[in-house]
Amino acid sequence: MSMYAIIMAGGAGTRFWPLSRRSRPKQLVPFVGEAPMLAETLLRLQPLVPLERTVVVTSAALVEATARLAPGLPRENILAEPVGRNTAPCIGLATRWIQARTPGEDPVIGVFAADHHVADPATFLQDVAQAAAVAAEEPGAIVTLGVTPDRPETGYGYIQRGAARGASWEVARFVEKPDRATAEGYLASGDFLWNAGLFFFRASALQAELTRQLPALASGLDALASHLGTPGWDEALASGFPALPSVSIDYGVMEGARQVRVVPTACGWSDLGHWGAMGDVLPRDAAGNVAQGQVVSLECAGSILINRAPGHVVAALGVEGLVVVVTPDATLVLPAERSQEVRALVDALATAAPEALE
Amino acid sequence: MSMYAIIMAGGAGTRFWPLSRRSRPKQLVPFVGEAPMLAETLLRLQPLVPLERTVVVTSAALVEATARLAPGLPRENILAEPVGRNTAPCIGLATRWIQARTPGEDPVIGVFAADHHVADPATFLQDVAQAAAVAAEEPGAIVTLGVTPDRPETGYGYIQRGAARGASWEVARFVEKPDRATAEGYLASGDFLWNAGLFFFRASALQAELTRQLPALASGLDALASHLGTPGWDEALASGFPALPSVSIDYGVMEGARQVRVVPTACGWSDLGHWGAMGDVLPRDAAGNVAQGQVVSLECAGSILINRAPGHVVAALGVEGLVVVVTPDATLVLPAERSQEVRALVDALATAAPEALE
Repeated sequence: MSMYAIIMAGGAGTRFWPLSRRSRPKQLVPFVGEAPMLAETLLRLQPLVPLERTVVVTSAALVEATARLAPGLPRENILAEPVGRNTAPCIGLATRWIQARTPGEDPVIGVFAADHHVADPATFLQDVAQAAAVAAEEPGAIVTLGVTPDRPETGYGYIQRGAARGASWEVARFVEKPDRATAEGYLASGDFLWNAGLFFFRASALQAELTRQLPALASGLDALASHLGTPGWDEALASGFPALPSVSIDYGVMEGARQVRVVPTACGWSDLGHWGAMGDVLPRDAAGNVAQGQVVSLECAGSILINRAPGHVVAALGVEGLVVVVTPDATLVLPAERSQEVRALVDALATAAPEALE
Repeated sequence: MSMYAIIMAGGAGTRFWPLSRRSRPKQLVPFVGEAPMLAETLLRLQPLVPLERTVVVTSAALVEATARLAPGLPRENILAEPVGRNTAPCIGLATRWIQARTPGEDPVIGVFAADHHVADPATFLQDVAQAAAVAAEEPGAIVTLGVTPDRPETGYGYIQRGAARGASWEVARFVEKPDRATAEGYLASGDFLWNAGLFFFRASALQAELTRQLPALASGLDALASHLGTPGWDEALASGFPALPSVSIDYGVMEGARQVRVVPTACGWSDLGHWGAMGDVLPRDAAGNVAQGQVVSLECAGSILINRAPGHVVAALGVEGLVVVVTPDATLVLPAERSQEVRALVDALATAAPEALE
């Protein structure tokens, strides 16, 4: 099976300031490992999807940096969104691009985020292959890879599985981020999986759902796709893409799709959505601290101490549940439980120290 | 009156790491104002004590840096302790040096720390002159300048004043750092002043007290003083000074002195003994935060945020009672209430990152 991959790599990088920046957002920077997250994402998929069958969708501003990061990726496989229009137009556009490349075929496509963490790539790859196989065998279906929860996480949406269907399950429903008590019930029931935003479908299946559920988007994409491979493509994209309706694949397609399947995976996935989540993916010491870089800590607990400034030492004593991130030109300090609020600081910095955002 | 000043400038600078370092301790670095604290100390005294009558006692390792800081200070006025032996040998040595310079006189000498903060230099100078006048008029007396407390501080020793004696008071007793309740009682009584370590005496008065109370120190100093101004001075100091008994002026002299006086001062003095004390001397915002340098803070309270790294921004959200200090090569984070424990971090850094202490 010649599977294609769509990598969504348009993140603006505010949630991980000061390590991620406008010009170098999260997917282009090493976070957990040594390589930038997009590089890890591409490498993780290589055994199943070579670069020539990989499409990276990013923002116009990040095309050059993205190309530099992945030298083996054909330049034409990088699609540049003039503006972000949420995930449905992004995935729809990349699907049209793949269809234009594969006349007479109906390839299976997997959708991945460029900036998620996977602790166990072998299991991930095996389960991706499984999900892709289900999508191949049930042509109208959209298949999601649902992550087996290991804690009552309140930061993710959930997928409740229904009846077993061989190698996959039907999806009873998608649910939004739950409160703590609900999440504990989900965990205990064993029927709920995290919605990791990992989708697999035949190109025709997505096209059919877009046409049925989001006809304005589908026709807008049709109009755009007629310019694919022509000299007018860049101009058509620049004028046509911003006019597409902004809608998420979850809300616009998945929730109303006729045939949805879920394949569970226990691959150690994390969407790494904020600094506090670093504790889920990096080793913790006995007191629950995560340290990265040159860090000396005494009597600290539950803290995330990240030092990415060469020749610099971070020394902490007696702090609890604190996030400290140091780069050569900026230092962030905030409670781990408020690490989703970095955006408020970024907004304040836009006035006080805009150079620190670039 | 030709008053002399002894400036004790031998601090090793661990309490204010990472801004102060072994090679550049607190007294050689700007803290509250724009100038290094020793420069501020010298300048503050200039109207009363010119540099040629000022003796700076520092450690051998800091002589060059001290000389560079005070270009108008005659080089011979910098005395280098081969090792620290606490305050009594330091003050005794400098007193002998002054006596050797002033044969047939018996000058009044004031003792000052190089790294204390004074918010109101004019009042300070007026009260210093007053204390010096009392020392001049009562030849056997040792006079202290006691700071009128404005809060129940538990970090300072106190002086209880006794009977009024014209422009000064007798000293009923010196007391160690009190607990909170005791400090509140001291504040309410109006009879207690902070012991700021500011002493004034005629040279003969100190010599008499040393001879009476610390005879081993006195005779050691006599032996050393015989080499003053000779080619053998450096060698005599190197071999003789480390053999002097290590004792503080407070314990060794003041507590047992026959005639002690105190002059109150409300000059906004602070010994600036730890990072938490920065809140006593720098402006606070409505939420009690102190910020120095390029700092952006949101919803912080009672925190001390100091950024001394050029081209760097410190951004903090939602922290309370925290100290954050950033320099180009090191970052310190700890609760303000534990800011006296920086030494524990410095000890840990001696192994983990010794270059960060230099």
